[in-house]
Amino acid sequence: MEYDFSFQNPTRIHFGKDALKRLPIELSYVGKQVLMVYGTGSIKSTGLYDTIMKTLKRAGKEVCELSGVTSNPTADKAYEGIELARRQKPDLILAVGGGSVLDCAKVVAAGALYDGDFYEQFFVKRAKAETAIPLGTVLTMAGTGSEMNGNAVITHTEHRRKSGMFSDCVYPVFSILNPELTFTVPKAQMVSGICDILSHILEAYVSPSDGDNLTDDLAEAMMRNLIRSAYRAVENPQDYTARANIMWGATLALNGLLDGSKQQDWMVHQIEHQIGAYTDCPHGLGLAAVSCNYYRLLLPYAPWRFARFATNVWGIDGHNKTQEELGELGILAMEDFFKGIGAPISLRELGMEMTAPLDEIADSCRLLPGGYHSVTHQELRKLLRDTL
Amino acid sequence: MEYDFSFQNPTRIHFGKDALKRLPIELSYVGKQVLMVYGTGSIKSTGLYDTIMKTLKRAGKEVCELSGVTSNPTADKAYEGIELARRQKPDLILAVGGGSVLDCAKVVAAGALYDGDFYEQFFVKRAKAETAIPLGTVLTMAGTGSEMNGNAVITHTEHRRKSGMFSDCVYPVFSILNPELTFTVPKAQMVSGICDILSHILEAYVSPSDGDNLTDDLAEAMMRNLIRSAYRAVENPQDYTARANIMWGATLALNGLLDGSKQQDWMVHQIEHQIGAYTDCPHGLGLAAVSCNYYRLLLPYAPWRFARFATNVWGIDGHNKTQEELGELGILAMEDFFKGIGAPISLRELGMEMTAPLDEIADSCRLLPGGYHSVTHQELRKLLRDTL
Repeated sequence: MEYDFSFQNPTRIHFGKDALKRLPIELSYVGKQVLMVYGTGSIKSTGLYDTIMKTLKRAGKEVCELSGVTSNPTADKAYEGIELARRQKPDLILAVGGGSVLDCAKVVAAGALYDGDFYEQFFVKRAKAETAIPLGTVLTMAGTGSEMNGNAVITHTEHRRKSGMFSDCVYPVFSILNPELTFTVPKAQMVSGICDILSHILEAYVSPSDGDNLTDDLAEAMMRNLIRSAYRAVENPQDYTARANIMWGATLALNGLLDGSKQQDWMVHQIEHQIGAYTDCPHGLGLAAVSCNYYRLLLPYAPWRFARFATNVWGIDGHNKTQEELGELGILAMEDFFKGIGAPISLRELGMEMTAPLDEIADSCRLLPGGYHSVTHQELRKLLRDTL
Repeated sequence: MEYDFSFQNPTRIHFGKDALKRLPIELSYVGKQVLMVYGTGSIKSTGLYDTIMKTLKRAGKEVCELSGVTSNPTADKAYEGIELARRQKPDLILAVGGGSVLDCAKVVAAGALYDGDFYEQFFVKRAKAETAIPLGTVLTMAGTGSEMNGNAVITHTEHRRKSGMFSDCVYPVFSILNPELTFTVPKAQMVSGICDILSHILEAYVSPSDGDNLTDDLAEAMMRNLIRSAYRAVENPQDYTARANIMWGATLALNGLLDGSKQQDWMVHQIEHQIGAYTDCPHGLGLAAVSCNYYRLLLPYAPWRFARFATNVWGIDGHNKTQEELGELGILAMEDFFKGIGAPISLRELGMEMTAPLDEIADSCRLLPGGYHSVTHQELRKLLRDTL
């Protein structure tokens, strides 16, 4: 694969302190019925719920609500939303919250227009949804990039499986991104989002092609900016520029921009999905916990890639070092970064016990071809044990 | 202005050596009548014309043609295309060529659906086109970014005015980008395209906001990649990776990605437009000729910006230098780059004579607010004289 790709992303972004002022215009393009989807109540305590509800009423909308979407959104909540949407037939689904709320809303947007069981269709048989109710979003947390892509991740509690769907028709029509709305996100969740962004960039970056390509340069620029902005945001959560960089970085990290010419890996996400399905851990923190050891596993297969990562992202001097030594220093620098912003670098720090069913989790992971190496369940068992 | 912007770009990109294989799928989405727009014949000598015509026939299309679009496409050619499109009522306009062909096709796409004089409406009265015939493109030259934006620049020969229109509805529905199709572009045109790309990046980069923002980081990564790739492509025009970087870089440089949080300047383009209107010089070479002295004029108003440019783009050591000294070294490095790839750094090298009506050209420039400083016609007269 050598610089061959397709790219399209139709989502309209309104970004900045005044972004919410664009909501009335967006509402004027759609019909009367709106289904508002949100989480477990933080938008009520911050006043955002009231602001949006007023805007909806002023626009003459009739609103029904799906509330209580949790992090690691469940299939059960999506079933509930689909039922509601089938009854109310909304012209717009408005998701107000973080990536979990957006992902649940996407599944509802598609599932409501199909007969039968959405989970069976889109997640088990992996059929692609070809139509969906139009979706708009007001984002309150930076991380998943769901505000500008066609991905949704759902946890099936009973099956102990966290998995994703993709469809062109669940790209939000519009997304409203005001970094100030992320100021009140608890620190651990902000850090989780930051780790998720870094992981999205790395899933593409740590894979061929290896030529001197623009996509890698953009990925490195985004990582350097994210690292600086993360330290600043941890120091001062009200730092608008840092939060804005993180928010826009999250969007660009998974909107297709970084796919150009890259084969992609995505095993860190697969591993975390199954850790999450078993433990309900915050997504980004789970990614941080396994990332460094996963990349140590890949290091011998692509030392040049990690040497480049060390030099261009972490500014490590490569003199008198082998690619492998330099690459390990890059991974160590990432470990220090995770520690520095308060993210876990082991499963124990993530809250898992000695008694956790690590082998069972490892064996439940879907194995992908990977970028430089295709891991086995055997390797994943060892990885999880080493990472405990 | 502080990180507030809207962004949407619906164009579907097919990129790579096999990108043209996606044309039949794209054709299957549209009706039978196609208007093919192209230039002065190079696509016939390379065989691209035959390939595309065969694909169109195989797809059952009825094709009419607008040929002979020149660089610095003229209003007269657009009038001719609009006449043709009004008669033939194409379901798709397929532009095959470089930015000039694409720009002419965009004007035809919009103008054909409006009564009256397109130039008067869209360029003089600056009305925004609200509808257009769907446009697809097969790009043969990298530079203008027209393949993924809503801009079109037209020269009115009689009025001696080269000016632009923008409309959401002339974004191409699809654009096919095969870097190999740029291999046969004459070197001077390739270099012109490279200068155009650098200028697009700088028009946004050399303006507020000045905070530590991701957009500036992306712009710098793109400039560093462009500079490396330009030297490689000048050395070996068949270097696929270099040509691919330049082609994708051209697209990203003017598709909205680099606007985020930036006020933008665009005076270098204004100046070149009028030089072009008087001399018909290649657009990018005209930009190169005036860029360095224009930025020298801005330097005292934003030394921090040019210091950053010197360090982050050209890798110049800032020790023991004032911001202004460092900034001047950055501009000198850009001058060396232009020389190194064979671009002009004076109007004389661009082919202008002592007797050129410099003051008249300066006075004909539209003055924009600018990023750090609003230039006057007096300053432009001096700039052009100093740059002769």
